[in-house]
Amino acid sequence: MKSVLKIKDDILQDNAKEAQGIRQRLAESGTYMVNLMASPGAGKTSTILAVVKELQQDVTFAVIEGDIESFVDSEKVKEAGITAVQIRTGGACHLDVPMVEPALDLLDLPSTDCVFIENIGNLVCPAEFDLGADLNMMILSVPEGHDKILKYPLMFSMCDVLVVNKADYLQLPSNNFDVEFLTERMKAINPEAKVFVISAYAGDGVPELAAWLKDQVHAKRG
Amino acid sequence: MKSVLKIKDDILQDNAKEAQGIRQRLAESGTYMVNLMASPGAGKTSTILAVVKELQQDVTFAVIEGDIESFVDSEKVKEAGITAVQIRTGGACHLDVPMVEPALDLLDLPSTDCVFIENIGNLVCPAEFDLGADLNMMILSVPEGHDKILKYPLMFSMCDVLVVNKADYLQLPSNNFDVEFLTERMKAINPEAKVFVISAYAGDGVPELAAWLKDQVHAKRG
Repeated sequence: MKSVLKIKDDILQDNAKEAQGIRQRLAESGTYMVNLMASPGAGKTSTILAVVKELQQDVTFAVIEGDIESFVDSEKVKEAGITAVQIRTGGACHLDVPMVEPALDLLDLPSTDCVFIENIGNLVCPAEFDLGADLNMMILSVPEGHDKILKYPLMFSMCDVLVVNKADYLQLPSNNFDVEFLTERMKAINPEAKVFVISAYAGDGVPELAAWLKDQVHAKRG
Repeated sequence: MKSVLKIKDDILQDNAKEAQGIRQRLAESGTYMVNLMASPGAGKTSTILAVVKELQQDVTFAVIEGDIESFVDSEKVKEAGITAVQIRTGGACHLDVPMVEPALDLLDLPSTDCVFIENIGNLVCPAEFDLGADLNMMILSVPEGHDKILKYPLMFSMCDVLVVNKADYLQLPSNNFDVEFLTERMKAINPEAKVFVISAYAGDGVPELAAWLKDQVHAKRG
């Protein structure tokens, strides 16, 4: 019998191969895809909604919502007038390619400039699964603490963009989140990654993040 | 070849069997054990430190710190003068019995009234692994949002105690955390569970949680 680690390797390798199929498909339709990962409650849905609102004149979006249970997030996204597809994993702690592919089938990709995948709220497991996205974006929210980069290094080292969300909490008297510590540490373990500090709730920093994303989307769209 | 789901079942069943060994061991020494689970940054270490400080005259504690990487939390605990053992999982997203057993070997159990296990920051995977604890305690922090009970139902339905932490955030003008929604929903899916609302940072609610825990520890200790 294969060891558990060997089986895990096989699963990850199969998934990485299948991710190539998604890349091919997105290349054909010229669609840019973002895999958004974070802890529960870091503000994934709020960040998506804030960015989409900022770019609604320039970019057509669709959102794939990954959840273990419930339709809470896809309902929020649909209420904002954005195309949304829900994946319910029924227990699984991350999304993989076989879950994302049928969700993509439900979208009109040629008329979609950018697909956001909202992954399961989890700083660990999603980092291991290549979904064929153009961009791996992670959110760390201020109330979680800057030390998370020491504790969950894989996510911080594999992402292309780190969004520090809930920046409004930095103003609280009780705040001890050290943005400088985080950005210095990020430079050391992942020097290529972009870092944005935003408040999806109050709007600060959202225009900068959105403008940068628009450039990436248009560069692929041509 | 076995399917991935079958293998997962086997792992969980083996783990549940091995958890009986831990229960037996803790029964012999009269030691009470708490398995503390939460998202990254919900305040697991702060809650442990606050409860231990409250009970330092009445209960002898030890802490087993689970982390994927780093010694940040065990150093904090040791600085507070509490016995701490670090488990580094090197990638694994939860603790299991084979990781906890050697950590217990390092503790003087007969002279320890209560062991806190601080699990990996993750609302999903740790809920599936029985560690042989007397009490499964979870923390949900206010900034994460009350809707997490809809999205991560297994953790909320398997825990014995739900601690709502960072209650100081409830006073913020931007707060939209609905404590009543959460407690009503909790009554529906897990009516036996105790719910405590605390601020480990400011101290509110900690005496009530600590007093309740002391009673549980003393009831086992005899």
